[in-house]
Amino acid sequence: MSQEQEFLAYLKEIALLNEAVGLAEWDSQTGMPEKGAEYRAEMSSYLAGIAFDKSTNETMRKYMEYFSDHPEELSDFGKQVFKKTKENYDLNNNIPADRFQEFSRLLSNAHSVWVTAREKQDFSIFEPILTDIIAMTKEFIPLWRKNEATDYDVLLNQYEPGITVEVLDNVFDQVKEGIMSIRKELEEKGTAPNTDFINRTVPKEIQKEFVTQVVEQLGYDFSRGRLDDTVHPFMLNLNRNDARITTRWDDNDFIMATLGVIHEAGHGMYEQNVDAKFDYTPLAGGTSMGIHESQSLFNEIIVGGSQAFWYKQFELLKQLTGDTFADISTEDFYKGLKLTQPSLVRIESDSLTYPLHIIIRYEIEKMLFNGDLEVKDLPKVWNDKYEEYLGIRPENDTEGVLQDVHWSGGSFGYFPSYALGYMYAAQLYHAMNQDINVEEVLASDDYSSIREWLTERIHQYGSSKKPNELIVGATGEELNPQYLIDYMRDLYFNVYDVKA
Amino acid sequence: MSQEQEFLAYLKEIALLNEAVGLAEWDSQTGMPEKGAEYRAEMSSYLAGIAFDKSTNETMRKYMEYFSDHPEELSDFGKQVFKKTKENYDLNNNIPADRFQEFSRLLSNAHSVWVTAREKQDFSIFEPILTDIIAMTKEFIPLWRKNEATDYDVLLNQYEPGITVEVLDNVFDQVKEGIMSIRKELEEKGTAPNTDFINRTVPKEIQKEFVTQVVEQLGYDFSRGRLDDTVHPFMLNLNRNDARITTRWDDNDFIMATLGVIHEAGHGMYEQNVDAKFDYTPLAGGTSMGIHESQSLFNEIIVGGSQAFWYKQFELLKQLTGDTFADISTEDFYKGLKLTQPSLVRIESDSLTYPLHIIIRYEIEKMLFNGDLEVKDLPKVWNDKYEEYLGIRPENDTEGVLQDVHWSGGSFGYFPSYALGYMYAAQLYHAMNQDINVEEVLASDDYSSIREWLTERIHQYGSSKKPNELIVGATGEELNPQYLIDYMRDLYFNVYDVKA
Repeated sequence: MSQEQEFLAYLKEIALLNEAVGLAEWDSQTGMPEKGAEYRAEMSSYLAGIAFDKSTNETMRKYMEYFSDHPEELSDFGKQVFKKTKENYDLNNNIPADRFQEFSRLLSNAHSVWVTAREKQDFSIFEPILTDIIAMTKEFIPLWRKNEATDYDVLLNQYEPGITVEVLDNVFDQVKEGIMSIRKELEEKGTAPNTDFINRTVPKEIQKEFVTQVVEQLGYDFSRGRLDDTVHPFMLNLNRNDARITTRWDDNDFIMATLGVIHEAGHGMYEQNVDAKFDYTPLAGGTSMGIHESQSLFNEIIVGGSQAFWYKQFELLKQLTGDTFADISTEDFYKGLKLTQPSLVRIESDSLTYPLHIIIRYEIEKMLFNGDLEVKDLPKVWNDKYEEYLGIRPENDTEGVLQDVHWSGGSFGYFPSYALGYMYAAQLYHAMNQDINVEEVLASDDYSSIREWLTERIHQYGSSKKPNELIVGATGEELNPQYLIDYMRDLYFNVYDVKA
Repeated sequence: MSQEQEFLAYLKEIALLNEAVGLAEWDSQTGMPEKGAEYRAEMSSYLAGIAFDKSTNETMRKYMEYFSDHPEELSDFGKQVFKKTKENYDLNNNIPADRFQEFSRLLSNAHSVWVTAREKQDFSIFEPILTDIIAMTKEFIPLWRKNEATDYDVLLNQYEPGITVEVLDNVFDQVKEGIMSIRKELEEKGTAPNTDFINRTVPKEIQKEFVTQVVEQLGYDFSRGRLDDTVHPFMLNLNRNDARITTRWDDNDFIMATLGVIHEAGHGMYEQNVDAKFDYTPLAGGTSMGIHESQSLFNEIIVGGSQAFWYKQFELLKQLTGDTFADISTEDFYKGLKLTQPSLVRIESDSLTYPLHIIIRYEIEKMLFNGDLEVKDLPKVWNDKYEEYLGIRPENDTEGVLQDVHWSGGSFGYFPSYALGYMYAAQLYHAMNQDINVEEVLASDDYSSIREWLTERIHQYGSSKKPNELIVGATGEELNPQYLIDYMRDLYFNVYDVKA
């Protein structure tokens, strides 16, 4: 075996261990017997431990050194794999092992503290441990730093390589202004749609039959995936032929699971269509949080917000639900799905106000790492921003600053990915429309050209290209938030009957 | 850490790897996306390979040598664990690695050859590879041998330590004679029960609700297990708190899944109640095939064949099935479940003729290894024995000698476990009745005393006691087939209205 072959075989071992950890995680969320939890933790941490050890040990260090010194021994493919592996290696190895373990311990406590604080609606319970998490993150930033301009840029870079505070400040200002102006016009000149029907009962089994047909049409392949029930929906890919999705159901809120499954199917379709040549390497799988979210949000918001799509799918829904929606016109049905209303809770918000929730979190995280916001002042700053941007103010910390799990997991710099994904999705939609008439396709019986367009430009590359490279390749330009603003204006002006 | 602690930590790693392999196997049978199969094989064989390597490598060899030389360094618990580990080690290591690999390759081909032969109803397709499997097994027997009297004893000993040809020859003669005599009396003096109702439609969901309640009452703990659908039913324990069972369903054969789930729940209850102190050692889990089968057959045949049990559970079944069985009396229902009829196929046979199927296989295996039966003569010998013992003759090899998967997997000496389990179950039932009135308990709302009796005498010990030790401890005597014969006579004379 050549050195490269040995290196790839070694990476495959790590990938197989991670696959086993993934299966264990999926199982523990979908139906592991409740009392198996402690034993499961032993197994998962053992396997994850071996994978982590192999990713950071002497053998891996030698590969990193050897190929840094002998790049000529690598094929082009080997070079791609080595580059990504080295990035991951540097991220893992720059933190001293004892500090990393300390951080892991802190995080595993933080989750239950956060849960308690939520129950008690009291941020002061969460404040001390959050302070520690932020302090340790600040300790690590210089160790992770390559050449990022600010501390917060270092964190952003971990989730969305290439995205900077400088870019986001500009982009988010535009988006914020755009949304505020759309909201103002809707309020002054628009007519809110009727949403009477939205809580009518659709039994879970019917919802499942409906959305299963829908996501199959969109291109989610059930012979290489499956749909299960969980408290928190997710997509988890064991490999490209086994990308599983989950959802939660509510008989009186059919649209929640419907859009939820369409969203997760977008993640799944991304993973299912990565080129098989990347199997068992760090290049298998989506390239960043933002690009992944662009695929799920393309499904959920662009497709799931399309009039042509619903004009078609409402027929199927009516076939499956008997008289439930017999008195609702197709137009009323579609428009009712797109009501916009300020919400205190991010995950309950609509597709117009959603980016404001992200921008609030971005501004606060930036202040925490690049400015001088103290942890104790978080609730007040949070509430003030909600009042300023959305016109509503949380009455307690649980519906305010304590609502998201992310910070208890040490994930700072992650939130912007959601908004980036949304902007990418709108930009991809614009570019796709240059090649195919998307609304026409969504009105037809064959959606395959949409999935193929995305596979050709995004999916197939796995992690072998950076987000910016993919977006420029697919759309001909860098991230441009104007597409999102235009998209939202057109959509909501239509729904609210506002003449532009 | 002491040497013993290090040794136990090492065994724990092997156990955790095997647990991951188990989960992967469960998943692949219960709902893995079909196209994930190839990737799954990679993962499973990688993890199983590490586990096997750790079980046979230099580190393990050193532990084996060290504690053989320094038994005084082991605690009593450590001695138990070491003894079992050493047994497994010797079994694995006495075969040269290259021959073992060759054997594995042979077996993995044999399965598909067997499937083809079944499809074509032609034993001659299977004959060459079966000849090779038997030849290699004969090659290994001297390497496995400790002090067994005959070649076939070596094989028996792997599945049911302590059981010999000498014992089985006697025991099976008694059982064969007992069954033949019962069958004769039933034929001459008995009245076969009415089974009209047996194929009435009970939808899968109702069957599931029914049998779930039943096995919960029997003591299968769903907070430490779960029930799924598979083509071939099984129990698979990842650990004592995660012992999963599966079944297949047929809307027009409710008794199949009902008794199937009750059977698998018996295996599951065994695993759920092994003492936690054996966790992560080779002593966690049932001690032998025969004892395991004694627990599943106690549930399926003894409990599931009890009049008191059905007098109670038929009420529940009627509650759940509306009018389906309204015209059937409780007595007719019970008796209808216990029709006996000679069958060509082992897994479709009833609880009276079942042991004859096993005895036929035992006699044939013994001839193959201790006598001079040639593989090519198998179909004729098989068919002759069916005609002699059961009065029916297979019309083709698929309903004859090709019906079982076992030989294609190299499992010779395994079949007797099924009959041993049945005899143990009847003997345990007899002993249990000295302490508690089992029929009275089965007529009541609280079955816990039955499960507790079995846990105290069988379950808790895991693999720390040999089969014979358990049976003597629980019943006060060695294996005695008379209990089974008496049990069958009483039961079938009652069902067939034969005056004794």
